[in-house]
Order: sequence, then structure tokens, then C-alpha cells
Amino acid sequence: MTSVAGVAAAMGYLDHIELCNRHDFRDRVPWTIDGVVAGYVTRALAGRLADEPDVFARTTNGLVLADHLGDPEDRTRAVAGLLDRLRSDGMIAALRHEDYSVRQHIGGGELMRIDRGAAEAFGVLSTGFHLNGVRGRGDDAMMWIARRAPDRPSYPGALDNMVAGGQPAGLTLVQNLVKECREEADIPEGLALSARAAGLVSYTMGVPGGLRRHLMYVYDLAVPDAFTPRARDGEVEEFMLRPVHEVAEIVRTSLDSFKYNCNLVIIDFLIRHGFITPDDPDYPDLVSGLRRPVRPSWRAERPDGPR
Amino acid sequence: MTSVAGVAAAMGYLDHIELCNRHDFRDRVPWTIDGVVAGYVTRALAGRLADEPDVFARTTNGLVLADHLGDPEDRTRAVAGLLDRLRSDGMIAALRHEDYSVRQHIGGGELMRIDRGAAEAFGVLSTGFHLNGVRGRGDDAMMWIARRAPDRPSYPGALDNMVAGGQPAGLTLVQNLVKECREEADIPEGLALSARAAGLVSYTMGVPGGLRRHLMYVYDLAVPDAFTPRARDGEVEEFMLRPVHEVAEIVRTSLDSFKYNCNLVIIDFLIRHGFITPDDPDYPDLVSGLRRPVRPSWRAERPDGPR
Repeated sequence: MTSVAGVAAAMGYLDHIELCNRHDFRDRVPWTIDGVVAGYVTRALAGRLADEPDVFARTTNGLVLADHLGDPEDRTRAVAGLLDRLRSDGMIAALRHEDYSVRQHIGGGELMRIDRGAAEAFGVLSTGFHLNGVRGRGDDAMMWIARRAPDRPSYPGALDNMVAGGQPAGLTLVQNLVKECREEADIPEGLALSARAAGLVSYTMGVPGGLRRHLMYVYDLAVPDAFTPRARDGEVEEFMLRPVHEVAEIVRTSLDSFKYNCNLVIIDFLIRHGFITPDDPDYPDLVSGLRRPVRPSWRAERPDGPR
Repeated sequence: MTSVAGVAAAMGYLDHIELCNRHDFRDRVPWTIDGVVAGYVTRALAGRLADEPDVFARTTNGLVLADHLGDPEDRTRAVAGLLDRLRSDGMIAALRHEDYSVRQHIGGGELMRIDRGAAEAFGVLSTGFHLNGVRGRGDDAMMWIARRAPDRPSYPGALDNMVAGGQPAGLTLVQNLVKECREEADIPEGLALSARAAGLVSYTMGVPGGLRRHLMYVYDLAVPDAFTPRARDGEVEEFMLRPVHEVAEIVRTSLDSFKYNCNLVIIDFLIRHGFITPDDPDYPDLVSGLRRPVRPSWRAERPDGPR
């Protein structure tokens, strides 16, 4: 491995997994709905929310959503009513006017909805999908990658998967996949629907003022030679077709060429398709580390308990 | 789901993962070499080994291999010298006259070797490979599966992956794959070498008198239409080509049609290739559960510590 001043020599695939899983639950307290954990907030935000007795109340170790908010609609409305003020106070990011579902665990019922811009500050479990667009097979396969537009608020100019999107409330996973494929890369519905589910990648990442508890459903799309993706919605600057081996080398030797979580999706692809092999001493750590349970364990918290 | 007396209705893919991960460390104590955990033994075996002061000594919470056994060869010879007596005492299974490496963690140095037949009783970390042999692609793909010979000592008559093998000491993973492909299914070397690594599946399973800490490297082999596997070494009764959908249904509805750990390998295949999709409510538990770190965590125990 070549290196500049020894920095790159210390890098490897595992560093991306470590980077995406840095967090400290000691700085954060849970908030609950009806006795189940809905998310985690910083102690600072907990203090602020405790000043809103119509919506939140303190418990011995965190916060609870007020009991009188008995159904998802009431809860959504009550919390939404706080967000503008929290934003003015600098406690949350800019609102996105797109709602995420708040759930205790994947597959659980919707407890309420919350604006996407507040999802990290409230530390809710979020999901989405990332799609690997691939031309050809085996060692000579090529991967379509995107470069994010230079004016995007987050990670401008960074490399990205061909298509990816957060999961908004009210759409199925496949509806969202078809929608984002159309909007981000001009992929027709029929081609988008040929994408195959290939597992998931998860991580828990502390971010300034928040916690990203994220689970990405991974899809592989066999892109026909005749199809070229086209940027439509201004989020993507350009699409590029690169040998998978070259993409692997970018991921392995650079911490920030790709948007942080895309590195994990690509490492997962490289493992599933035999580009990273068991003779890599980090192999078990990579395979397991890509899909750590999003704390708290999605099993342990099931209403029906572990089976 | 159809069911007989309601039994099958309660079954699902997750049950195989639970079954392979049943264990109780409270019944077992660690044994160490040079300060690192080499394995776990039952309290009964620990008591028996403490009667061999030239080889083992008691510690506050387990056993330590005697300090004077300073290198891997000495340790291997000293422990091997006990095995016939342990077998006579009924403390270990029949010897296999094939050695496994004893390592603290995957990719770590060989601390010693031990007969395969004693690996579970000594609770050492063992590895091997399972190979999915597949004809065709997508929803119509077919899978080659094996039926184990009726006279095999373990799991006679059960269904199995096309090829699988424990990892003997002294061979590389690929050398062993080529050897087993030849012996078990008459797969020529060139075809065997075209198998692609596709990740791993791991589990920790309590067995009578022992502990199976097992990590299976998973390979996918694209089997040409013109190739038919052939049983050679008497371990396989017959090979069958079945639609992947049919194999999935066997795994989903039957706890013991396949040899226990083959179910995990097939579930992993079904996830990687989009036969099990995210609309299965168990999806996150399946993906994560297939590759739980083999306790103790392979990261935490590294000599250089977590990075």
C-alpha cells in the first residue's frame, strides 16, 4: 500500500466500520412512548424537552412522551408543534418536510412520525436503501457510482452509490426504491423492479447533537450495457462507470472519497461477490461489523421477547 | 403456511439460527495458553484435566496449559498424549486422526493443534467452508444439494450443501476447498477454483459434553448445465438438483431435513440472492443473527486490542 506520510498505510476497510459506529450512550438518555424506547436524545435536548410538560415528562433515567398523547396522530402533532422552536434554539437540524416513521424496532408498528430533519436529534431508528448498480459479472464487473452535486448541504462533491434514499413514512420499501431510482438516476420502473434484495448494513453513529441509528437495505441492480443513468433532480453531479476493483481501492485507501455510509455498502458488495476474500485477516470482523444490531437490540426489545 | 397439528406453523428461518446458537457459558470454564483463551471445557472435563499436572493447571476461573509447554509442538504432543485416556473415560468423542488448529481468533497464530474429534470437548474455535452449487440465476435458479449417506456417524440421511468441509491444520482454505470438491462431488480443480467467496456464517452451539464455536466460510459456485456432481468417497448418498424456491421451503418448514448448520448457509444464500426479502419481519434478525461474533468477540481478544 502506498501512503502519504504513513497515513494511508494505516487505513483499511475496517476503519470505515469503526467510523460509522462511534457513539457514546453515556451522553444520551432514552425517550419512551407507552413503555418502549422510541429514541435517544442528548442530555441538553432532554433538559430542553422537559420544559414542555404538555408533551414530555422526565423519568428517572430519561424522558417519556406525555400519557395523554394516546395515538400516533396526537403524538406526531404534539412533537411537530415543538420543532420550529427547537430549530430556533439551534437544538435540531433544518426541517425537511418529509416524515420518518418512529418505531421501536424494524417491523414494529408506527408509534408516531417525525420530520426527517429531527430524526437524528431524537435518535430514532431510521431505514433506507442503497442500490449497487453493476454492469457485468465476476472480476471484470463495473460499478456505476454517483458524484454528489457540489451544492448539496451534506457531503457535497462526495462519491455515492448509484441510488440511495431514506425511507419516508407512508411508502413501502419498493415504492420508495422505484421513486428514487426515477428521481436520482432516471431508471425506468421496470428496470428498478429487477433490483434484487441482498441483505442489509447497519450502524449506530454519534453525530453532533444526535445519534444516527440506521439500517440500510441493500439492493443489487444488474444494469444492462445499453442503459446509462442520468442525473435528474440536481442531487447528482455526474454518474461514472468504474471497474469494481478500482472502486474497492478508493474505499480501502480513502476515508472520505465516498459519503461515509456508502463505504459500508460497497464493502458489503465486495464481500458478497468475492472481491474481498477470507485471506483478509479482517474478514470476520468486516462481515460481522457491517450488520451490528442497532442498539438496543431489535430482538431484546420485541414486545413478545426473544423466541 | 400449512401445518400438521400446528407445529410447522410456528416454524421459520429464525428457528434454525436460535437452534444453532443455544449454549450456556455458565456450565463451562475457559482454558488458556500463554494468557489467551484457547477454548472452553465443561466443569466435568476441567476437573478431569486438573488431574494431569504435567499438562494442565487450575486457575481461579478455569485452566491454564502448563507453562513448560513453550511451543506449539510441545503443546500438541502433550495434549494428544491425554486423548486416548479421555476417550476411554468417555470424556471426548472418537478421534478422527485429522488435526485442527487451535487459535485465539480467526487469523491469529496457531497456538497448537488438536485432533478434530476433541475439538468440541475442548471448545476450540473451528472453521470450515460450505459451498452452494447453483445452476442458473434469478428466481428460476436451481441448487445442487446432497443427501448424506445412511451409514455416516453424524446426521445420516440428512440433506447437505453440495460440498462442505472442516478446515484441517496445514492446508489453506482454497487447498481444502479444492480437495473436498474433488473427494465429495468429483468437481475438477478448475471448476472448484471458480467458486467465489461470499461471506461467512458463524454460530456458537452447545453440544453434549462440548461447545461448537464455528465459523463457516461461504462460497457460491456457478455450476455449468453440463456438469453433474458424482459421489466418490461414500459420504454422499446422492446429489439432487432442486429449484431454490423448493430448497427454501424445505428449510423454512422443517427443522431437521438439512443437517443443522446447512440451514444457516442456505438462509444466507436466500438473503444474498433476494429470495428472502426485507418484507420478512425477521429480516434484520436473520441477517445479523447469521454472523454473530463467536464468543468471546474476535475483536476484543486481539493482542493489539480493538483498533
